[in-house]
Amino acid sequence: MSDQKPLQFVSLLGSLRKGSFNGAVARALPALTPAGTTIQALGSVGDFPLYNADIQAGGFPAPVVAMGEAIAKADGVIIITPEYNYSIPGGLKNAIDWLSRLPAQPFAGKPVAIQSGSPGALGGARAQYNLRQSLVFLDAHVLNKPEVMINQIATKVDAGSGELTDEATRTFISTQLQAFAAFARRLG
Amino acid sequence: MSDQKPLQFVSLLGSLRKGSFNGAVARALPALTPAGTTIQALGSVGDFPLYNADIQAGGFPAPVVAMGEAIAKADGVIIITPEYNYSIPGGLKNAIDWLSRLPAQPFAGKPVAIQSGSPGALGGARAQYNLRQSLVFLDAHVLNKPEVMINQIATKVDAGSGELTDEATRTFISTQLQAFAAFARRLG
Amino acid sequence: MSDQKPLQFVSLLGSLRKGSFNGAVARALPALTPAGTTIQALGSVGDFPLYNADIQAGGFPAPVVAMGEAIAKADGVIIITPEYNYSIPGGLKNAIDWLSRLPAQPFAGKPVAIQSGSPGALGGARAQYNLRQSLVFLDAHVLNKPEVMINQIATKVDAGSGELTDEATRTFISTQLQAFAAFARRLG
Amino acid sequence: MSDQKPLQFVSLLGSLRKGSFNGAVARALPALTPAGTTIQALGSVGDFPLYNADIQAGGFPAPVVAMGEAIAKADGVIIITPEYNYSIPGGLKNAIDWLSRLPAQPFAGKPVAIQSGSPGALGGARAQYNLRQSLVFLDAHVLNKPEVMINQIATKVDAGSGELTDEATRTFISTQLQAFAAFARRLG
Repeated sequence: MSDQKPLQFVSLLGSLRKGSFNGAVARALPALTPAGTTIQALGSVGDFPLYNADIQAGGFPAPVVAMGEAIAKADGVIIITPEYNYSIPGGLKNAIDWLSRLPAQPFAGKPVAIQSGSPGALGGARAQYNLRQSLVFLDAHVLNKPEVMINQIATKVDAGSGELTDEATRTFISTQLQAFAAFARRLG
Repeated sequence: MSDQKPLQFVSLLGSLRKGSFNGAVARALPALTPAGTTIQALGSVGDFPLYNADIQAGGFPAPVVAMGEAIAKADGVIIITPEYNYSIPGGLKNAIDWLSRLPAQPFAGKPVAIQSGSPGALGGARAQYNLRQSLVFLDAHVLNKPEVMINQIATKVDAGSGELTDEATRTFISTQLQAFAAFARRLG
Repeated sequence: MSDQKPLQFVSLLGSLRKGSFNGAVARALPALTPAGTTIQALGSVGDFPLYNADIQAGGFPAPVVAMGEAIAKADGVIIITPEYNYSIPGGLKNAIDWLSRLPAQPFAGKPVAIQSGSPGALGGARAQYNLRQSLVFLDAHVLNKPEVMINQIATKVDAGSGELTDEATRTFISTQLQAFAAFARRLG
Repeated sequence: MSDQKPLQFVSLLGSLRKGSFNGAVARALPALTPAGTTIQALGSVGDFPLYNADIQAGGFPAPVVAMGEAIAKADGVIIITPEYNYSIPGGLKNAIDWLSRLPAQPFAGKPVAIQSGSPGALGGARAQYNLRQSLVFLDAHVLNKPEVMINQIATKVDAGSGELTDEATRTFISTQLQAFAAFARRLG
């Protein structure tokens, strides 16, 4: 693999809570991504105002522009999100709504991987399919498999450190990131 | 119908743009609802901060509490929304995410009708099914038919007045509101 | 409850395999339904030909007519189904496609409850939301909660007898059937 | 384009009706596909029995094996389907259910394009997103854009010849097929 082009991925987190379990997943990614790839966190979706075309008419907010540029430069985007009300959080959808209006829509043709975690049994599965539907419109290329849906996530994050310590989950995420790197190279 | 209990509905708008086409639909509703029913607009989803459990820990924002109380008192909710990226706007989802955490979740058992409009051919259809999925979790009772999906909505709102003037659309909305009143009475 | 109208439900099974785990769920229902209600199995979806409008032009097949009449007479329908390829089995969808064309569409206004089981972690969740979307078109009234999604179903059916023996699952199904009876009475 | 590898696509039709409008679309494809590509119709999904694991235990039916081999050899699959009850026809889903069990699952890694037509305003849109969800499980690579959703399809097929004669629709399909060829080559 030593002669492969290095890949620079970015991660987008759907939760705003400081102690977010999905935030713990996002922080774990740089250590889990395969050799030859890096993962850098994007800014917070909490820095975006609620989408309003009247605001857009006066110019895109600086955090939207910055995130759009970071996505455009990246070789792929990893979206990590909780599930709220059987779909993605409004804050994450709001970020997508802003980014989708940028003159150079940054998700077009971009490889995307999805990870979700929830305290319940389904691990955010329902959110993932709604998100995939939005990504059809954005013309992103979403990795099919393996699907990372982390159930009972509260038991997989260390209560003291707040970090993702469950080894099986970490290994499974590594497997997805390897598949994602191969997918990005196939599309590249 | 004179001896039927009057029904008080509220309307929830998914767009923040001042000149919103869907806003024109929402404004038209009070004149289109059948005798014995009224429709009052809820506050703006733009008054809610992005959902963050850390904010919630310090108390629900006043606009969330107020909207929750208004929904709880109403006999039904009409949600009028554009479609962004094949789903509902982040701002509307964000409002649902806040409302869903209120101690007395206001959508539980509540009749809901959905209306959407878009400049394109599908009239926001894709947004409606994602919204329905969230409403399963909230245990709302969503009217099945008729489905109001207003395509080419820009041609149905008067460019001068900004009001919904298309007669066929107004009549169709009336038909849905009549079905909604009957549905709310059946569930009541 | 003694003065309540008795309710007669029917059950529709989405699997054709003789040793079907979901079939074990369906067989368990009559013993789990609350006092004042009964559950009778409908015929097999395997008796329907693949839907073809040219066949329909010559008359509906007898098993379609019979199932349509049984549903029309029932106070509610319980659909029990495995998940195939993240949706409902083609055989179940085929039955719905036939039934939906009957002159008196039998699902219109009918209370419906959904149960699914799968060997995996999600218990057929993905199939349920696709099925709900079809039931919007059919104007059925689908129970929201509790949602019965039986994960690791192979561990909950006795290998010897082939019957659903897991007590927690049986109790949970009873809870849903009680909610379904209340829902059917509310709509009635 | 003369030095590009020729691509051989296959088409899978979701309708069984002889005079099917979607069948007219499928028949039009060979004349609309770009130079360097061919499109050959697969067998009929009507030749498959309803999926039953007990039948599978005795061996896959010959039409399933044959279709699986044809898909495996192809450079891409174009699925053309009507929408029944807000989803794909049971017969098409049944074919997918059979094909998905073949030891060498033929959709894995395969480029897929979707086309749908309906007599109504939405052109089968709802069916497309359910189908996409199944194709995630099958690990197919589904073209995002342009999405071919042919509304009012009865007006676009010549009543006399039964062929797809609407020029705008034919041109739009050509555009999708060109995008599909590029997509298949990108993935190849």
